[in-house]
Amino acid sequence: MHQTYFTPGPSGLYYTVEQHLKTALRTGVASISHRGNRFKDIYQQVDTNLRTLLQLPDNYNVLFTNSATEVWDLSTESLIKEKSLHIVNGAFSEKFYKVVTNSDKKATLISAEWGSFPEIDYDLVKQADHIAITHNETSTGVATPLDTIYKIREENPGAIISIDAVSSLPYVAIDYAKIDALYVSVQKCFGLPAGLGIWLVNDRCIARAEEVLKSKTELISYHNLLALVKQANNYQTVSTPNVLNIYLLAQVTADMANRGIQIIRSEIKYKSAIFYKMAEEHAKLNLLVKDKTLRSDTIIVLNTEGCTQELIRFLANKKLIVGTGYGKMKDTQVRIANFPTHSKEQFEMLTDLLETW
Amino acid sequence: MHQTYFTPGPSGLYYTVEQHLKTALRTGVASISHRGNRFKDIYQQVDTNLRTLLQLPDNYNVLFTNSATEVWDLSTESLIKEKSLHIVNGAFSEKFYKVVTNSDKKATLISAEWGSFPEIDYDLVKQADHIAITHNETSTGVATPLDTIYKIREENPGAIISIDAVSSLPYVAIDYAKIDALYVSVQKCFGLPAGLGIWLVNDRCIARAEEVLKSKTELISYHNLLALVKQANNYQTVSTPNVLNIYLLAQVTADMANRGIQIIRSEIKYKSAIFYKMAEEHAKLNLLVKDKTLRSDTIIVLNTEGCTQELIRFLANKKLIVGTGYGKMKDTQVRIANFPTHSKEQFEMLTDLLETW
Repeated sequence: MHQTYFTPGPSGLYYTVEQHLKTALRTGVASISHRGNRFKDIYQQVDTNLRTLLQLPDNYNVLFTNSATEVWDLSTESLIKEKSLHIVNGAFSEKFYKVVTNSDKKATLISAEWGSFPEIDYDLVKQADHIAITHNETSTGVATPLDTIYKIREENPGAIISIDAVSSLPYVAIDYAKIDALYVSVQKCFGLPAGLGIWLVNDRCIARAEEVLKSKTELISYHNLLALVKQANNYQTVSTPNVLNIYLLAQVTADMANRGIQIIRSEIKYKSAIFYKMAEEHAKLNLLVKDKTLRSDTIIVLNTEGCTQELIRFLANKKLIVGTGYGKMKDTQVRIANFPTHSKEQFEMLTDLLETW
Repeated sequence: MHQTYFTPGPSGLYYTVEQHLKTALRTGVASISHRGNRFKDIYQQVDTNLRTLLQLPDNYNVLFTNSATEVWDLSTESLIKEKSLHIVNGAFSEKFYKVVTNSDKKATLISAEWGSFPEIDYDLVKQADHIAITHNETSTGVATPLDTIYKIREENPGAIISIDAVSSLPYVAIDYAKIDALYVSVQKCFGLPAGLGIWLVNDRCIARAEEVLKSKTELISYHNLLALVKQANNYQTVSTPNVLNIYLLAQVTADMANRGIQIIRSEIKYKSAIFYKMAEEHAKLNLLVKDKTLRSDTIIVLNTEGCTQELIRFLANKKLIVGTGYGKMKDTQVRIANFPTHSKEQFEMLTDLLETW
């Protein structure tokens, strides 16, 4: 029996990936030129599939990056005029904030304890020209309520709103008209090998980048936003991309679209519901996120009372692999991914087993 | 019969990759945490194998990037104090030059027609604090004589010498004591899927980066040289890397080391020798690079008298895939890769077939 990876990313491969990888080997996808029509067709398939899957408006561009973290640099370079506001409630939202503090742009933050979400200070919101919000904190399992994002937009319609949906896309059904940019890594919900990011940016981001890059005096990066957009208009990339992963993404997004995003979303909701119910009633485990309205459906974090390693071994004996806590929480928490590749049966097995712990 | 890709990159996969990919799928490599010991072991294997294969001195670090082009940005950020000199004789050497012109650092160039190599102006060499040399121009098939690189070092021992060996490593037997940094993309000679770069940097580069980054006022990039080195010291990466490709690289470099780098090098020499002999005597084809001492063994460029598409179709009928000319030369040249994965038999077949054209 294969192991099942419930790790928060890299996670289990989407269940169709192995077959697509075999097809890729048979048809030479890893050897094709990224300047040829075959690659352009693959890029266009990803573009089309994502628009279907996410209900992505026409004023959005689908860009490839090497990772989500690269987007922190590129956003700081192109999307921030002077002041960026960061909602910080975990490791990843904090890292983006720190990237901006290592630049000539001003970074402000509204922060909260890990596992919670801050009260929003709308005065600070109104002062920023760029607002970074992590929809789903992979370090803590907190999901930002979408209404909060929309309220921030209402209070400052001029700011670029950039969403980290690294571990929640395509699960999150966000209204793209109320944000400007969103980025994701494919090794989470899309169930692909690591090494590719997707960056969705609207026309407001392009206008902002044109304005901001004009006044830059130091290095304008080779993969800057405008360079990516220019190439993407022709389904091309600035440099040789991870062609194999882009091919796999085209296949997996087609599979997901065929399955139906509503079905995928309702299965994730079902799995998180049974899991959270078990966790709430557990004698030895408890949930990091106390507020039910903040609990992520795709990343679940459990406090283990220092028994992380024992718990991981207990599950590994049954071929179920879960993640440690993030950073300092390595030995006191476990993190469990609830992604489209994880079947209801696998999740029921995990839940039942944890019940006996 | 499978097609054989002689394209200049992405090229044919190294002949052991398919098997390693199957093992990777079976053993869950694409799902492992990049913060765990299993990943560290893989990184260490790459490090050890490259040191063996390349005779890499101890004062070098083995870093991973997303691509070779990323190294242009990172070098401009960290390795150039004020003045960078670029030997420009093709598309890729020119692109690095242009990256520096898009920064606050001063870029100077010594340029030559495509297919040739310039006379070196040692006065310019002496003025630079960073010198960028493309060992093997993938756009033209010109290989820089190693003696020229060593002479540049002698004339300006204080400058950081950065070598683009994108399409020649591990074939090129360079003396690492006479350079400071070298970068490569894995989709060329290493025969891997695209989406990973290797950057070899010595301790002089680290000292330079420490000096240069101190005075930076704009964004210090998340993946800056010092951040990469700090993580690499513990066989870790700054962000989630292309784990699957790094695993494949560990296997392929072990395979190459087992085979013996001398055997690999002498086979490449044999293949280029028979090919160049055929090309010199050909009635309808001729070589872009007239000067024999400049001809690359790993990238061969032929002028086709405008018959590129017919020639490509002629070879494709026999399942042999070659590349078009680069950029403007798309319809008037073909480019042929002579990489470790291409067997003597495959190259003889290609050569024999071209003889009949």
